[in-house]
Amino acid sequence: MDDGLLRMELEREHGALPLFEQIRLFVSNAVANGTLPPGVRLPPERLLAAAIGVSRATVMRAYQELAADGLVRAAPSRGTIIAPARSGEDEFVHDAASWALGLLPLARIGAEPALLQDIMSASQSDHVISLASAAPPDDLVPTTEIMQALARALDQRGARLLGYGPVDGLADLRELLADRMDSMGALKPSDRVIILSGATQGLSLAARVLVGPGDEVAIEAPTYVGTVRTFEAAGARLIGVPVDGGGVRPDSLEQVLSRRRVRLIVLQPNFQNPTGAVLSGQRREQILWLAQKHGVPILEDDAYGSLYRKSPGPAPLKQLDRTGIVVYMSSFSKTLAAGLRVAWMCGPGPVISRIALAKQYSDLNTNSLGQAVVGEFLRSGSYDRHLEQLRGVIGERMWKMHEDLSSLRPALQVDSLPSGGLHFWCRVRGGDSTSAVRAAAAAGVAIVSGHAFFPSGAQTVAGAEHVRLSLPPGGPAAATEGLRRLAVALSSMTTSAEPSTQPLSVVV
Amino acid sequence: MDDGLLRMELEREHGALPLFEQIRLFVSNAVANGTLPPGVRLPPERLLAAAIGVSRATVMRAYQELAADGLVRAAPSRGTIIAPARSGEDEFVHDAASWALGLLPLARIGAEPALLQDIMSASQSDHVISLASAAPPDDLVPTTEIMQALARALDQRGARLLGYGPVDGLADLRELLADRMDSMGALKPSDRVIILSGATQGLSLAARVLVGPGDEVAIEAPTYVGTVRTFEAAGARLIGVPVDGGGVRPDSLEQVLSRRRVRLIVLQPNFQNPTGAVLSGQRREQILWLAQKHGVPILEDDAYGSLYRKSPGPAPLKQLDRTGIVVYMSSFSKTLAAGLRVAWMCGPGPVISRIALAKQYSDLNTNSLGQAVVGEFLRSGSYDRHLEQLRGVIGERMWKMHEDLSSLRPALQVDSLPSGGLHFWCRVRGGDSTSAVRAAAAAGVAIVSGHAFFPSGAQTVAGAEHVRLSLPPGGPAAATEGLRRLAVALSSMTTSAEPSTQPLSVVV
Repeated sequence: MDDGLLRMELEREHGALPLFEQIRLFVSNAVANGTLPPGVRLPPERLLAAAIGVSRATVMRAYQELAADGLVRAAPSRGTIIAPARSGEDEFVHDAASWALGLLPLARIGAEPALLQDIMSASQSDHVISLASAAPPDDLVPTTEIMQALARALDQRGARLLGYGPVDGLADLRELLADRMDSMGALKPSDRVIILSGATQGLSLAARVLVGPGDEVAIEAPTYVGTVRTFEAAGARLIGVPVDGGGVRPDSLEQVLSRRRVRLIVLQPNFQNPTGAVLSGQRREQILWLAQKHGVPILEDDAYGSLYRKSPGPAPLKQLDRTGIVVYMSSFSKTLAAGLRVAWMCGPGPVISRIALAKQYSDLNTNSLGQAVVGEFLRSGSYDRHLEQLRGVIGERMWKMHEDLSSLRPALQVDSLPSGGLHFWCRVRGGDSTSAVRAAAAAGVAIVSGHAFFPSGAQTVAGAEHVRLSLPPGGPAAATEGLRRLAVALSSMTTSAEPSTQPLSVVV
Repeated sequence: MDDGLLRMELEREHGALPLFEQIRLFVSNAVANGTLPPGVRLPPERLLAAAIGVSRATVMRAYQELAADGLVRAAPSRGTIIAPARSGEDEFVHDAASWALGLLPLARIGAEPALLQDIMSASQSDHVISLASAAPPDDLVPTTEIMQALARALDQRGARLLGYGPVDGLADLRELLADRMDSMGALKPSDRVIILSGATQGLSLAARVLVGPGDEVAIEAPTYVGTVRTFEAAGARLIGVPVDGGGVRPDSLEQVLSRRRVRLIVLQPNFQNPTGAVLSGQRREQILWLAQKHGVPILEDDAYGSLYRKSPGPAPLKQLDRTGIVVYMSSFSKTLAAGLRVAWMCGPGPVISRIALAKQYSDLNTNSLGQAVVGEFLRSGSYDRHLEQLRGVIGERMWKMHEDLSSLRPALQVDSLPSGGLHFWCRVRGGDSTSAVRAAAAAGVAIVSGHAFFPSGAQTVAGAEHVRLSLPPGGPAAATEGLRRLAVALSSMTTSAEPSTQPLSVVV
């Protein structure tokens, strides 16, 4: 766990490649895609062998083959390092940046380097249809109105808008958001609002302010990849609490809270990513009661709350909260445009003060153009009109995609159409989500393996058996084509594996 | 040092307020400006007394007065806490968010809460003339061209631009910046470029990736406030290396490197903030040699490099670097618009990979509107035209402000007109920069005390004797009016204090 490489997963089934060959391929791929850049030191043979459960001779053979390939080289007293790419520039010394070899292992800053980067850049490629990104389809982004909002804001506020701004965000935007929180009964007397550079910043700051390294944090299992990785990067110890059709399970949460010293609970009560589950009203009261009883605050991530299909979810935890135990966070990335990087957090004053302080030493303040766009949309009423239209179109597309998904049975199964959000949590026949993702990629469609939504190293059955499919960028035809490719990919997979007979810990 | 409050500085000179009264005022002000929000616990009397060197009875008296003022109250088994603001909403329980009292002390996330916030928001007030902000005057921000650049970018790239983007920034912008680095001979074969959400993010990520908690970092003394606070917030131990007219002193740096285990050196070789000093060409070679000899990387912060008056500074360290020991960083905040939140870093691939990973778990990616604006400016050549014009106007205003400053002698002294940048590092007669800042604030002009530019707790003579004045927002008249107010403020200060006879460790 102390090096990105240890995430290597070997296949040991009959018919798999020899183990040394799998290690060699893993490293070759990582070098090819830049995950392992020149100069990075590979783990000592002994350590890697122990970590992945193979003999030292196996690792030694893999390293020898890699050296023969010219991909790594033995560096005196430094072990085996990734070789520099061939370059004509001899003036620059060969051992450049050797100090970088002494850097902290990757795990200190996040365990699975390539994952989110892959998801992000998949949506940038023209050849791949991405069913892997958690953003509203780009044909629904109101580009023209955003341009008009920018023109209005720059016209009215000019250069002053473009200077440094307050750490906690533009005052008028904070007020507009406080009003919205208030109108849903979710603004408490001691609450403050802060504007964030996306919800990921909120998770990152919360991980540093509300949780210390080594502290335990209860999260949903499965949950948003970013939640898992951000808290892991901050050194938190994650405890997954199972999610079923009614959201996170209070009985399981109670067990966790009474047996462990949990410092924070992170929840997505509405249209949970990836399951789409909605936390039932009764469970909301139970969970608040548990949090209060144990004195553990809840970070309520409401990124998908506005994207309901027919009716909103139950009242947010923040509204039901009577003791200031809930910190609420939501974002404009799923509803307006992710590239604006604008989200907000609302919670008790002392907490938000600390979040602001940490933000000041992270990025000073959120970009003013994005804040201005959001402010204009909220003030003019365009935001609510846009939301209504967006809900309609997304609802139709989700319905259509759910229909299309039925033709992928039995290779892929999704239970019911989620009542909001952008995602389908699908069970893969044979329970081999890793192979399914690989086959899909080969067929030109990106999907996410269920493993990604659980704490690193948790080898859950649910992770192995599920993949997440999301509405793709582009119009409705993209989803149809994406699922067509996926059907081809899945039919090409070997169907010899038996379906798992172990009980699921997670149900959609 | 383990609580924001301990930063309280008491005046003990004859004629100062009674100590208990100073403590009371400090807390009252902090409550009034929100630094100490309701629910925050004050340090136990015993601890505070020890930390600030007064008797326990003095602290006790201060707390009693504060309780009488209704500003704090005794909370059973929790000591003295800031009282909630009066509120009619009784439904919300009185002890709301009591869990927040258990939060990490403020020092874990940054020692001087109010400082940068003050500097930032001073520039937002209409009544105060800010000579305290490190941004280009807002009348020089090319608002119309920025609007045109946005329109072009959205027209050409539409909604795709507004989705999630690559963690390390838009590919075309990265290429443009790599070309610029290359054209100044500062792009090494193994280098990569990453776009950052402002240079503060670069400092913050470097502090987490290149330095571990407790590690030692050599910085210039004095240096940019954000450098000090960001590294302190990440738990680094800062060692100040004196700066003189030729920049940071190699002899002092050598002593530090040979006696301590330094992990990183952070430097602003060009038009250093706050002194304006330029590191001489000879010293650049010496410092590179020292860094290589001791295997300690340099983070070169070139935020002001483009803002020269007549001619650029010597070649950047990054250009002279032959061994990959330098990581370069610069920003568009000082040259285009701070509100765009766009900066970049260029360094050895393995280092940038790690920075990218940490960024991914901080804010996913930099806002796309800001990146698009910068890209359009660079591509079209407008950026270089704007820079040339900006240099001309800033040069004139700096010259004029330097002229006007001479009328403030002997109360305020600045040696020579800096050859670039936005700042004057001025010596205050009597060596009481804190009082000068206070008097200035009362007269409606914001300046920054020299203390801010040194590591927290370092009671340097240079910090006490200096203030930093910067070009204000608004046109040239603002500087004239700001200096007029400052002259009034300084003349009102008691001139009884003797000028310090101690040698200066810092000279402009």
